Amino acid sequence: MNDASSAAIQKPGQILARGVCRHLVGHGFVTVEELVPTPGLRVDVMALGPKGEIWIVECKSSRADFTSDAKWGGYLEWCDRFLWAVDENFPTELLPDETGLIIADGYDAEILRLGDETRLAPARRKAMLRTFAVHAARRLQLLRDPGLALAAPGS
Amino acid sequence: MNDASSAAIQKPGQILARGVCRHLVGHGFVTVEELVPTPGLRVDVMALGPKGEIWIVECKSSRADFTSDAKWGGYLEWCDRFLWAVDENFPTELLPDETGLIIADGYDAEILRLGDETRLAPARRKAMLRTFAVHAARRLQLLRDPGLALAAPGS
Repeated sequence: MNDASSAAIQKPGQILARGVCRHLVGHGFVTVEELVPTPGLRVDVMALGPKGEIWIVECKSSRADFTSDAKWGGYLEWCDRFLWAVDENFPTELLPDETGLIIADGYDAEILRLGDETRLAPARRKAMLRTFAVHAARRLQLLRDPGLALAAPGS
Repeated sequence: MNDASSAAIQKPGQILARGVCRHLVGHGFVTVEELVPTPGLRVDVMALGPKGEIWIVECKSSRADFTSDAKWGGYLEWCDRFLWAVDENFPTELLPDETGLIIADGYDAEILRLGDETRLAPARRKAMLRTFAVHAARRLQLLRDPGLALAAPGS
């Protein structure tokens, strides 16, 4: 009931993101949504793994949603792995072989392909961990303290 | 209204924590509450500063609340600075001079004394940043996705 009502006001990509984030819990990852690694980029899901891995997952609900995204190449330099999350009807042959692939719905997901790994340099990894922490803590504070008028650039 | 109703179900220390966290936003800090840096310890507020500073703030609502806390010395090794947050009626002469002092209520706070700084070693700082990020992201996911049954040790 709660799931259905919240799903009704979410965009298709956000519903996929929810399933992705639930699934990644089982792999020991924590996640945030709609994180801005650098001005002008906003990633659907950023995931932090048990060994410090940083993954970006972009959620695409349709062919048009994918083909209209000219920015995705810019995400690669901000993560160790880049993966797409799509639903079971998505034409996955559109997606580059070197990127990862997750099939998702609003409730769970399955990782079909991890894609290539390109390890972040230590300085950028540290900066991304900090960005992740700041983003998560700001969003959390806004939810646990609705009375807060938070000036939160970048969140 | 929202503030009043949420304050009504919080413990006195949690109300102080809310004011502390609001105030620290103005100093560029992000915060989480009730973080476990190591098994057996739970800190009221852990704050991450704009230069990567890690502060622990323990919130004490009364003399008895302070004198019954035998654990606070154990917090020092997990932060760069350790501060107390108390209300305006607290007998602050009880508090060690080398620790920081914040006067708070549920809506704001004021830092009266920063206390001594003892910088964390780089490896521990990195581990604490990760602990902070994981804690914040787990709590956030539980709030944004109430349908998630999250097995979240340590959060």
